[in-house]
Amino acid sequence: MESGALTPPARQEPRGDLDGCTARLRELLGREAVITDRQRVRTYECDGLASHRSVPAVVVLPENAEQVRAVVATCSAHGVPFVARGSGTGLSAGALPRSDGVLVVTSRMRRILELDVANERAVVEPGVVNLDVTRAAQPYGYYFAPDPSSQQVCSVGGNVAENSGGAHCLKHGFTVNHVLAASVVTPDGEEVELGGPAREAPGYDLLGAFVGSEGTLGVVTSITVRLLRAPESVRTLLAGFPTTDDAGAAVSAIIAAGITPAAVEMMDALSISAAEQAVRCDYPEGAGAVLIVELDGPHAEVEHTFTEVSEHCTAHGAFEIRTAADERERALIWKGRKSAFAAVGRISRDYIVQDGVIPRTALPDVLRRIAELSASSGVRVANVFHAGDGNLHPLVLFDGSDPGETERAEEVSGAILDLCVEHGGSITGEHGVGADKVRYMGRMFTPEDLDTMQSLRCAFDPEGLCNPGKVFPTPRLCGETPGRRRGVHPLTEAGLAEQF
Amino acid sequence: MESGALTPPARQEPRGDLDGCTARLRELLGREAVITDRQRVRTYECDGLASHRSVPAVVVLPENAEQVRAVVATCSAHGVPFVARGSGTGLSAGALPRSDGVLVVTSRMRRILELDVANERAVVEPGVVNLDVTRAAQPYGYYFAPDPSSQQVCSVGGNVAENSGGAHCLKHGFTVNHVLAASVVTPDGEEVELGGPAREAPGYDLLGAFVGSEGTLGVVTSITVRLLRAPESVRTLLAGFPTTDDAGAAVSAIIAAGITPAAVEMMDALSISAAEQAVRCDYPEGAGAVLIVELDGPHAEVEHTFTEVSEHCTAHGAFEIRTAADERERALIWKGRKSAFAAVGRISRDYIVQDGVIPRTALPDVLRRIAELSASSGVRVANVFHAGDGNLHPLVLFDGSDPGETERAEEVSGAILDLCVEHGGSITGEHGVGADKVRYMGRMFTPEDLDTMQSLRCAFDPEGLCNPGKVFPTPRLCGETPGRRRGVHPLTEAGLAEQF
Repeated sequence: MESGALTPPARQEPRGDLDGCTARLRELLGREAVITDRQRVRTYECDGLASHRSVPAVVVLPENAEQVRAVVATCSAHGVPFVARGSGTGLSAGALPRSDGVLVVTSRMRRILELDVANERAVVEPGVVNLDVTRAAQPYGYYFAPDPSSQQVCSVGGNVAENSGGAHCLKHGFTVNHVLAASVVTPDGEEVELGGPAREAPGYDLLGAFVGSEGTLGVVTSITVRLLRAPESVRTLLAGFPTTDDAGAAVSAIIAAGITPAAVEMMDALSISAAEQAVRCDYPEGAGAVLIVELDGPHAEVEHTFTEVSEHCTAHGAFEIRTAADERERALIWKGRKSAFAAVGRISRDYIVQDGVIPRTALPDVLRRIAELSASSGVRVANVFHAGDGNLHPLVLFDGSDPGETERAEEVSGAILDLCVEHGGSITGEHGVGADKVRYMGRMFTPEDLDTMQSLRCAFDPEGLCNPGKVFPTPRLCGETPGRRRGVHPLTEAGLAEQF
Repeated sequence: MESGALTPPARQEPRGDLDGCTARLRELLGREAVITDRQRVRTYECDGLASHRSVPAVVVLPENAEQVRAVVATCSAHGVPFVARGSGTGLSAGALPRSDGVLVVTSRMRRILELDVANERAVVEPGVVNLDVTRAAQPYGYYFAPDPSSQQVCSVGGNVAENSGGAHCLKHGFTVNHVLAASVVTPDGEEVELGGPAREAPGYDLLGAFVGSEGTLGVVTSITVRLLRAPESVRTLLAGFPTTDDAGAAVSAIIAAGITPAAVEMMDALSISAAEQAVRCDYPEGAGAVLIVELDGPHAEVEHTFTEVSEHCTAHGAFEIRTAADERERALIWKGRKSAFAAVGRISRDYIVQDGVIPRTALPDVLRRIAELSASSGVRVANVFHAGDGNLHPLVLFDGSDPGETERAEEVSGAILDLCVEHGGSITGEHGVGADKVRYMGRMFTPEDLDTMQSLRCAFDPEGLCNPGKVFPTPRLCGETPGRRRGVHPLTEAGLAEQF
């Protein structure tokens, strides 16, 4: 497990009537589904980002939508904050519990409610594991496209909260592109439907705003997802380049030729070396960078495009190109990439997985600047990324037992985000803001922009009980009158100065 | 021009200080850009849906974003309602002016501010004509994908407001899939940025909610659109079928085979006959239905898929299949389809262009029920539609000079929407709700769902000055406290009962 920013646990003043709330939850869900035992609740103190920890006061395990509704309504009535959690694999502390609140764990809600192959969709409960949707659809020749690395464990509800991507989102898009509708319990305990089975619906697209809202606008209780037809053909290529610049130029050439591969992944020398030590993936020797390019689609298209991709790689300096002859060889190519994060743990005691986005054309410049940052600070950085859409995952290596190293690593990590923003990119590609990146939001957005987003949060959650402290600095008060203007938000000027 | 529901013009009590507002607008924009002359303002009394009319008190013609901001801030300060209008080609009275308000016409904002081919995007002002984006990008091998029938005239700002589609949105998606960012003046006169150049951004996706909000959340002043690479190859096929059932079965087979054509359009016998009379498109004789299928993509893929599509058509009863050998023949095939709406005007004095969505699998059933409705009422219905995504455009024919015919036509038109809702579809596919379909919103959404959407409107526009009366029944008051619950909306119970 990586460690990162060692933020002190937030001290939280109890806000509502927690005892009354807990008693009522026991009446509603039964004693067994409401956990307050200190040992047991402690297991939920963090999600995948272990540097942020906070032990929840109460953990509830609802079994269906009606129980979720009852839990949220009860929290709302008692003024108690609540946080929803799926499988807890998030990497931004988006499911960090409140020590004065209720953690709503959806792991008992794992039913696939409907599989409608004719209309290419499925309805699932939020706790359903991502890969289980594909497993259910596979016999009919379909699959669920979003494929975060954690897809064997992570929940669809969590994917909705984080708008999860994955290696294949270059071609197929993020979770938001694969969700047609959702039943949602709003922070005041009302159940509403967002979106609908029709591709186009009148009114505001609140579904689009809900997906990726990181649990701050309510709790999802059922999700209608799109199923994609499994492609007729898949081809995977591994190419070794002398430098990341060469590999980056090849990526630009492929995209400029109008080709949209299913995935384009890049690894630099340091991450290749870590992967080799960990899983012996046998990547081209002496490579300064490797590219993994995967194409999917109709057989004729894939074969044709595959030749083109190989040519672009060769033209930009690839000294070795391999293609997977079968599923086994394909798995071997992916093994190095998929093990990269864990592998880095073998060459460094601690590391931060950074997540930023830049325009594809800025890749060479940003990689050079990251190398300079690394050289000048003495902090090693391994680069693994979704090269096709400019989503970087620099791994910042450090030894937390060495005085001052943690701070230096955090400084480099933050400076990488500054580089992303400076190049017109984003402070997160797919991991979210959560509690972890709240402090960077002001680098990317103006107070007016944040203010406008906050107005939506205030409209849904005027009391600030729904996953408070995530994404935005918590508004102390949503104001006495509605609207963006009249004192609704503390985020402007003084508020910002105080928070960042 | 089609005519339709003859709704009496809304009587509007003047709401704010219109005279003071007008005087200030003249100071800010100059006298020439502020029109109050009765003759001149009358030309703006309706958009493409001429059955709804209302003469604006004032028309302003801003030249840049700063002027738009100043106009909106002035309206807000004087409590005067305002409506934005692009080219006025909308078909749901979404740009219907207020007789007590200001109409903000963007026709002077026609600059393409940036063309960034390397990053596949352009930045345009809202008044830029849809097709002009493609014209600017064409020399570089790119185009702007949304292609409503009105694309030679309609504005990109209008496309954003309505989330416009077009014949090719089956494969390429709606406007929302082609907008990366927007500068927006919120109803209180503040300029904010929604979205951004990176594909993934933190915070709420308010851009997605703004696109398609029909001018009710603010006025867009610049739009960053995606440019798509022009396909290597395009192939167009015209197939004649005995019945719409046969053609519908062919569409289902094509989609079930995993093929996503760029466009799949269907016309029934009555619309074919109208098109023949109008433009002599020479469609297969005796056809009960024709399909137009267009494929685009890499050459190898298109050729391969084209053979498959032809086979599916033949297998489902196509008695004649033609393929366009060149651009001239392609244009001829499309000519019949594109002229269909106007052509119907030759066989009927008046008609309503309806716009609804159904799941593709419901097509045969819904078409049968429309035929039954037509038979039992004696009202003729011609069907033209985007068959691939279930977006129907039934043309309901009537003679408004014949007593009672208008009412019967409206009844049939409304019953078709009920059919759509009953089959899990939508009351609008691409024309929007505007003023025209406000009365149908309650058939599709629960009070809680509408309430949730209204909370977003209240957050942006608590005074109800921004395009009031569109999409939702206007909230009389956004409430004294923020949030969804406490008396914010008049839409629940009593409110709904009153409105619908």
